[in-house]
Amino acid sequence: MRNMTIDGDRLWSTLMETAAFGGTPKGGIRRLSLTDEDKLVRDWFAKACRAAGCSVTIDRLGNMFARRPGQIDTLPPICIGSHLDTQPTGGKFDGVLGVLAGLEVLRTLEDAGYRTNAPIEVVNWTNEEGSRFAPAMLASGAYAGVFDVPSVLARKDAAGISIEAELERIGYAGDQPVGGRPISAMFELHIEQGPILDAEELDIGIVTGVQAMRWYELVLTGSDAHAGSTPMTMRRDALVAASDIVRLVRDVALAHAPLGLGTVGLIEARPGSRNVIPGEVFLTIDLRHPSDDVLERMEAELLDRARTLAAAAGIGLRSERIWKAPAIAFDPALNQHVRATVERLRLSHREIVSGAGHDAANIAKVAPTTMIFVPCRDGISHNEAEDTSPKACADGAAALLGAVLSFDATLQAGAPTA
Amino acid sequence: MRNMTIDGDRLWSTLMETAAFGGTPKGGIRRLSLTDEDKLVRDWFAKACRAAGCSVTIDRLGNMFARRPGQIDTLPPICIGSHLDTQPTGGKFDGVLGVLAGLEVLRTLEDAGYRTNAPIEVVNWTNEEGSRFAPAMLASGAYAGVFDVPSVLARKDAAGISIEAELERIGYAGDQPVGGRPISAMFELHIEQGPILDAEELDIGIVTGVQAMRWYELVLTGSDAHAGSTPMTMRRDALVAASDIVRLVRDVALAHAPLGLGTVGLIEARPGSRNVIPGEVFLTIDLRHPSDDVLERMEAELLDRARTLAAAAGIGLRSERIWKAPAIAFDPALNQHVRATVERLRLSHREIVSGAGHDAANIAKVAPTTMIFVPCRDGISHNEAEDTSPKACADGAAALLGAVLSFDATLQAGAPTA
Repeated sequence: MRNMTIDGDRLWSTLMETAAFGGTPKGGIRRLSLTDEDKLVRDWFAKACRAAGCSVTIDRLGNMFARRPGQIDTLPPICIGSHLDTQPTGGKFDGVLGVLAGLEVLRTLEDAGYRTNAPIEVVNWTNEEGSRFAPAMLASGAYAGVFDVPSVLARKDAAGISIEAELERIGYAGDQPVGGRPISAMFELHIEQGPILDAEELDIGIVTGVQAMRWYELVLTGSDAHAGSTPMTMRRDALVAASDIVRLVRDVALAHAPLGLGTVGLIEARPGSRNVIPGEVFLTIDLRHPSDDVLERMEAELLDRARTLAAAAGIGLRSERIWKAPAIAFDPALNQHVRATVERLRLSHREIVSGAGHDAANIAKVAPTTMIFVPCRDGISHNEAEDTSPKACADGAAALLGAVLSFDATLQAGAPTA
Repeated sequence: MRNMTIDGDRLWSTLMETAAFGGTPKGGIRRLSLTDEDKLVRDWFAKACRAAGCSVTIDRLGNMFARRPGQIDTLPPICIGSHLDTQPTGGKFDGVLGVLAGLEVLRTLEDAGYRTNAPIEVVNWTNEEGSRFAPAMLASGAYAGVFDVPSVLARKDAAGISIEAELERIGYAGDQPVGGRPISAMFELHIEQGPILDAEELDIGIVTGVQAMRWYELVLTGSDAHAGSTPMTMRRDALVAASDIVRLVRDVALAHAPLGLGTVGLIEARPGSRNVIPGEVFLTIDLRHPSDDVLERMEAELLDRARTLAAAAGIGLRSERIWKAPAIAFDPALNQHVRATVERLRLSHREIVSGAGHDAANIAKVAPTTMIFVPCRDGISHNEAEDTSPKACADGAAALLGAVLSFDATLQAGAPTA
């Protein structure tokens, strides 16, 4: 069993072949959830899985489960998967790698004639990106009980078309219930979508969890006035105050280095005229840290110092926390299987915290779950320029296969069954 | 002659009466150039001037000249005026005060049966605001030879309607040529549109000139990246760099206090998403100083320090100066007449530099010109909340009348004639 190796060339070929479904001239993919392009890749995936000896079932939200039976087929399945939908100008690897590496695992097992203890199910989760139907990770969220199925089915895109209607139209309104059954373990392989592994020239990230995230909206209020006739000392310039807030966000994050993150992504100065001193500025803040406690302290520090800054400048400040996601810890036992595997394979590695949300973060609420990261060039993602190497994909799939087999070996006939 | 006094109540009544043409519920005026509302106020103005003993001529660009003959009618006229058009949500005083105070001067002279040496012409310049037809001060610019008449006639509003067509439609396509004749002097009374006189509780600003102004556009280029997966030390955040530029603009202006001014009015962070580190920021800079030489030094200091800042942060910087208006000096001799008048009237006063452009800045290129400022509450202008007092309007009109008569007294039969 330990000598089974995945076929890196075959994996790369499937990545490149399926990239044609919604492929863009710049080398990316535009494959929004439940569109014709999504149907094409789903059909391709189902066919490939059946050819690798699987049965394919679809649940009410279009989540696809390609099941390869286990020796003890009553054991809850070991799930491997991610998503096949992309951003509007997405890359070829975000999500796709996690599903197609699962397929590569199935093919490798099939080629070797190897039968795992537990059944293996490779999953394609519907609408991970949230670009067409908000919010993101909708169907894995429903699977984990975060959302209820009827409300998800009723969600509409910008054109007013519902998920339910589109599932019917493309033939992926399945008959299986959503969730409600045990899973032995869930593994999700993904590109890092950040620069750490690439910069440190490491092969594998062993993902210990998803960091806590909070979003804020701030409105700074000064006085808009004529840029040509208002002396500097008589101004109440909301943009000057906002620029202090931008630096403050960075300073608070740096004060909690290396894991604290703080970003101002959106800023709007009003009224927005070249010769008018901005009287109001709206800005957003994204604050993250792997520890809920530290993030709580970062928030307090940020808001306290922002209030002091604004008051000293005679600027009004309203702030609102509009979203809060607690930290998610992945399963240490599963990560021990990943670690043992990558050490055996002599792949360089480190522990890493996921900066982004993933379907795995939902499934972690109902089953032992972890993720494996591989580097992507310069950390670029959600972009047609997203790139990684055939070796990185092969390394990731090898780590995935090894960890799945290592974990599967611990499952016995006597273990709890489905 | 020295005992003639303007009628402050009558002036205030005309201001309030004409404010109904385009009056807004919030107490401002929306009277865009060459609209039906503009026609109404023009008709009202022409009728009032004729009733005050004037002939009214209109030039090819709709500039209106209400002429009261002089004792030596061959002398070039003394012009008084401003504009009757407003911003889309403008106030009741910007421009309007300068024209209606001219009317009040005419009425005062008429009531007193006083005949000046030179003819007096009260002028309403077309399209000062530039809100409907860009740029601002278009018709006074053509009068001074800055623009040629056919190109001004061809300018169109956002709906594609030309100045020429609108002049025809509202009956103000006059038969007089634009400019090309001598003017003895031009006086423009205006609200300050800044906070200095109001804050210092002074009655009159003797305007020594219009400051030099320059506009810049900057593009800062970093790397857009995921806010959740890019460590702080690996970021090239264009908005953090932009916030340094915002502070730099303020610092450079403050280093040339009290007359240096610097403003960032427009800023756009791209791609503009809450969880994406901005990879590019566009911003505008408005830099002003009464001295061209000092402004030149401010520009050099700003751009030099901006380049240093950007380079240190690993951020690309492109900058372009998109507009440059040199400083304009008003006529010291005319200002001596203003000063002598306000001292005689015991009005408190100071010298002041205009922060904004005005029709007078164009006419200064072809004739001795000056301006008189009166305070406006909190310096608010280009806003429906723009406000000043009946006393301030009356003080301004009295200073205007006195300065015109003082200057007129210097004109002799032997002076150059038209």
